[in-house]
Amino acid sequence: MTVDDELRALRQPGATGGQVRHLARRGAYGGFTHGLAPGYVQGNLAVLPADLANDFLRFCQLNPKPCPLIGMSPRPGDPTVPELAADLDIRTDIPAYRVWVNGELVDEPADLSDWWRDDLVAFVLGCSFSFEEALVDDGIEIRHISCGVNVPMYRTSIPCNPAGPFAGPMVVSMRPLRPADAIRAVQITSRFPSVHGAPVHLGFPQAIGITDVTRPDYGDPVPIGDDEMPVFWACGVTPQAVIAEMRPALSITHAPGAMLVTDVRNSTLAVL
Amino acid sequence: MTVDDELRALRQPGATGGQVRHLARRGAYGGFTHGLAPGYVQGNLAVLPADLANDFLRFCQLNPKPCPLIGMSPRPGDPTVPELAADLDIRTDIPAYRVWVNGELVDEPADLSDWWRDDLVAFVLGCSFSFEEALVDDGIEIRHISCGVNVPMYRTSIPCNPAGPFAGPMVVSMRPLRPADAIRAVQITSRFPSVHGAPVHLGFPQAIGITDVTRPDYGDPVPIGDDEMPVFWACGVTPQAVIAEMRPALSITHAPGAMLVTDVRNSTLAVL
Repeated sequence: MTVDDELRALRQPGATGGQVRHLARRGAYGGFTHGLAPGYVQGNLAVLPADLANDFLRFCQLNPKPCPLIGMSPRPGDPTVPELAADLDIRTDIPAYRVWVNGELVDEPADLSDWWRDDLVAFVLGCSFSFEEALVDDGIEIRHISCGVNVPMYRTSIPCNPAGPFAGPMVVSMRPLRPADAIRAVQITSRFPSVHGAPVHLGFPQAIGITDVTRPDYGDPVPIGDDEMPVFWACGVTPQAVIAEMRPALSITHAPGAMLVTDVRNSTLAVL
Repeated sequence: MTVDDELRALRQPGATGGQVRHLARRGAYGGFTHGLAPGYVQGNLAVLPADLANDFLRFCQLNPKPCPLIGMSPRPGDPTVPELAADLDIRTDIPAYRVWVNGELVDEPADLSDWWRDDLVAFVLGCSFSFEEALVDDGIEIRHISCGVNVPMYRTSIPCNPAGPFAGPMVVSMRPLRPADAIRAVQITSRFPSVHGAPVHLGFPQAIGITDVTRPDYGDPVPIGDDEMPVFWACGVTPQAVIAEMRPALSITHAPGAMLVTDVRNSTLAVL
C-alpha cells in the first residue's frame, strides 16, 4: 500500500486519529491533515519551556475563545497527552513541526528528536476544523473550502487578556455567510466552546480594526457576495502570534495545516 | 388601595400573573401589560369559530416561529386554558379586547360577555416580552424600550406556510444591536423557541422585502446606530395580519399591548 493509498483510506469514514498519527510517526507523511480521519478532533500545537508554561496556561485560561486548551503535557518533558489519546507521542505524531529560537524560524523537522528537552511543555489547542465539520454537516457552505484555499485570518483591535509576558491582539478567521446561515452558524458553533465557540463579530470589519477585508493578514482572501456578511471567529493563530511576538528562547509549533489528530470525536466536544 | 397603587405593586418582583388577571377580571384596568408581573409569560390572543380552528391550529403548527402556540381552549366554547393557569377565564382576564366581524373592527370591549359563543376556540401565542426579558437580564439594551415606543414591525417577503384559508407574509419585529450583542441575542433567544426563538434575519432588510427600515408597517420607528445592525425576529402580529386578511365572520384578539398574563414563568420556556 502506497502512502497515497493510505491517505485515500484516511479520508474515508472509519479512519481513526491513531492511523494518521502512526503515518506521521513513521515519517511517511509531512502534509496537511484537513479531511483526514473525519470526525476526529484536530489540534494546534504550542510547546514552551517550563519557565513560561504557567504564564501561557494562564493566558489560555484568560482567553478561551482564541486559545481553547484541549490537552497538555502531564508534566515537563513528558511527550504524552493522555486526555487526547492513550497512544500519542507529541514528538513524532504530527506530520511537520516548526522550531523557533528567539522568535526566528530555525527548523521545520518531521519529528522533534533533535529538539525535545526535559523541560518542555506541550499545549494542544482546539481548531476550527471541528466546528467547520458541524457547519458543513448542516449544509452550510464554507467559502475557503469551496475555493480550495486557506481560511482568511486578520489581526484585530481586540486585545487579548495578558498573562505575564504573553499579550497581543486577537487574530480572527472569517467565513462569509448569508444572514440566515450566520444565525444558524452562531447556534451551531455555540455548542463547541472548546474549538473557538460562537463568532466574536459579524458584519462590520472596521469595528474590530480590520481595514480591508479583502487583504487578510494570514491565509487567503475569499469572495464575499452582496447578500453575505463576513462572520469572524477567534482563531488559533492568536497564541502563535502572541508567542512569536515575545520571542521565547525556544518554542515549537505544528507546521501550518499539519495538525495533531486525536482520538477524541468532534461530536463529544458539543456541550449541548 | 387605588388601581394606580395596585399597578405599582404589580410591577414589583413577586407580583403574579393571577393578580394581573384578577385586576382585568374586575374591569379595573384596560391598559398595557408590559412590565406587569415580571417573570411571567404574557401571550397574544386569537379567538376563532370552531369551523376555522383546525386550519388555524395547523397554520400555527406549520409556522412555529411567527405563531408559537402556548395554549388553547380544551374544547369549543370552553373559556379556560388550563396549561397556562388553573384560574383563567379567557373572556374576562385580558385588560382589553378587539372584536372583528368580516375583518372590520366593531368593538373594543373590556370583556367578552357580549361576544362569547359556544363554538369559539381561543388560541394563546407566545410573545416577544419573554425573550426581551432574557435579553435585558443579560445587559442588552432593547431600543424601543429605551425609547418608550412600540417595537417596529414589518411585513416581509417571507411567505408563511399556508393552511386552508390562512396564508400571507411573515411579519417581523426589529431590534437594532451591535454585532457582539446580535451574536449573544441569537444564543439567548434560541433557548426560547416557544416565544419566536432565534432571529430570522439580520443585516440586510432588503433581502427579506423591507425597502425602508425607517418606516415600519406597524409600531414605531427606532434609531439604528452606525455600529449597529437591524436584527429581525418573527412576530406575533403575523397571525393577526393573516386572520385580518381572510376576514372571518367573527374573530377576537387582545387589544394591542394588553396581553394575557399567565401563571407560567418565562424561565420555564427555556429549552436549555
